[in-house]
Amino acid sequence: MTKLSVIKIGGNIIDNPDALVSFVKSFSKIPHPKILVHGGGKIASQLALKMGIEPVMIDGRRITDAQMLDIVIMVYAGLTNKSIVSKLQVENCNAIGLSGADANVITTIKRPSEPVDFGFVGDISKNSVNVSSIEGLLQQNLTLVFCAITHDKNGQLLNTNADGIASSLAIALSESYDAELIYCFEKKGVLKDIKDENSVIPTITKDNFEHLKQEKIIADGMLPKITNALEAISKGVKKVIIKHADDLLDDGLGTSII
Amino acid sequence: MTKLSVIKIGGNIIDNPDALVSFVKSFSKIPHPKILVHGGGKIASQLALKMGIEPVMIDGRRITDAQMLDIVIMVYAGLTNKSIVSKLQVENCNAIGLSGADANVITTIKRPSEPVDFGFVGDISKNSVNVSSIEGLLQQNLTLVFCAITHDKNGQLLNTNADGIASSLAIALSESYDAELIYCFEKKGVLKDIKDENSVIPTITKDNFEHLKQEKIIADGMLPKITNALEAISKGVKKVIIKHADDLLDDGLGTSII
Repeated sequence: MTKLSVIKIGGNIIDNPDALVSFVKSFSKIPHPKILVHGGGKIASQLALKMGIEPVMIDGRRITDAQMLDIVIMVYAGLTNKSIVSKLQVENCNAIGLSGADANVITTIKRPSEPVDFGFVGDISKNSVNVSSIEGLLQQNLTLVFCAITHDKNGQLLNTNADGIASSLAIALSESYDAELIYCFEKKGVLKDIKDENSVIPTITKDNFEHLKQEKIIADGMLPKITNALEAISKGVKKVIIKHADDLLDDGLGTSII
Repeated sequence: MTKLSVIKIGGNIIDNPDALVSFVKSFSKIPHPKILVHGGGKIASQLALKMGIEPVMIDGRRITDAQMLDIVIMVYAGLTNKSIVSKLQVENCNAIGLSGADANVITTIKRPSEPVDFGFVGDISKNSVNVSSIEGLLQQNLTLVFCAITHDKNGQLLNTNADGIASSLAIALSESYDAELIYCFEKKGVLKDIKDENSVIPTITKDNFEHLKQEKIIADGMLPKITNALEAISKGVKKVIIKHADDLLDDGLGTSII
């Protein structure tokens, strides 16, 4: 099977112009088919504040009311997505930017308003990913750049978790590709000691994850990431790696989830 | 040759939610390959004002400084484009939204800053349209939805005239398709008497255009539209029609430029 990399970058890279340019250069050098999924960064909140709208977060998750939805569509699908695509074109990486509505690639269901009403947020489910549509685009030798906006196929755009989009894409495409999933962020991997950048845990398995959870070595925002990663592995993805964006092309660096 | 319709809608349709939904329903019913090009509307200027930025126009054309460029990218490529695409998906029209950077479909050159510095504005030239990339997408049975943002292939996104994008697409694709170009707006066609909605001029040719110009029957914003249309005809486009958006599916209505 052809190799396929699904790579997710978070806000820390998007908010730092130098880091983004450097990432784009490395990413472009990947010789096989590839998909980039980008999160949001601070621009949406900054724009909201400029417009006199106070962003509301619960447990680190954004409440997306109608006004905030317009803002995240503008920033994620507009400014951030097109900026990344135009930078990839400079490197002769023929990229195409996508929301879930484009070519109907990702359909989600609006999250129920109980117990917490997160507003216009879409949750990815088993049948969210339109594999044949995505394969058609990949067969045109295009590099796909997904923003974290999806649709419900009834005309409603929805704000969606970028980590979930990345793992769902890797899982859905693992039937026809030898798929790997890479989460790039600003640390060298999952750290044993958060204060020691060199304490990267080389490998996480289902078994030592339980241990790492109990010892509180893995906590907070890293927990759902690892849970997602283990789920991806159990559903056909060959390899999940969590690593520094600067180390993208260095095999063997970062934390492998197997 | 397969028939292809390139249809441009302007701000009056985009700014009116009912008109847009009604247009999308008609557009979806076109049975052959189709491309939609949308202009901007008032949302970008409204957003600028909310952010405390005063839009500057010279001769009805927007000055696009760096701040204004970010705004038009957000609104045109983000909010407006994805809103149209998600509405088309409701009608089972499998649409994909594109800026010029996406799949490298349209490359333009930044307009010289003399005599007037319009800022980050890109002018379309003969080789702007990437025909093979567009054909690849059309062959996936996708309906292409272009916003009026292009790129220079050097990482710079540029604000670009939507009428020009539409006519350039129709011209470039007329070698491989039987291409027609339709400009939809809020009037029934080019009017002999601007106050009489029923005074539609049925046909404009190169010859009677000169006469209509001299008599000042065609003036202002309609002049470049007709000039564009006649150029498209001379370069291989089969038919150019200027008509009301509500009349999209009614052959024979509007003004034909032949």
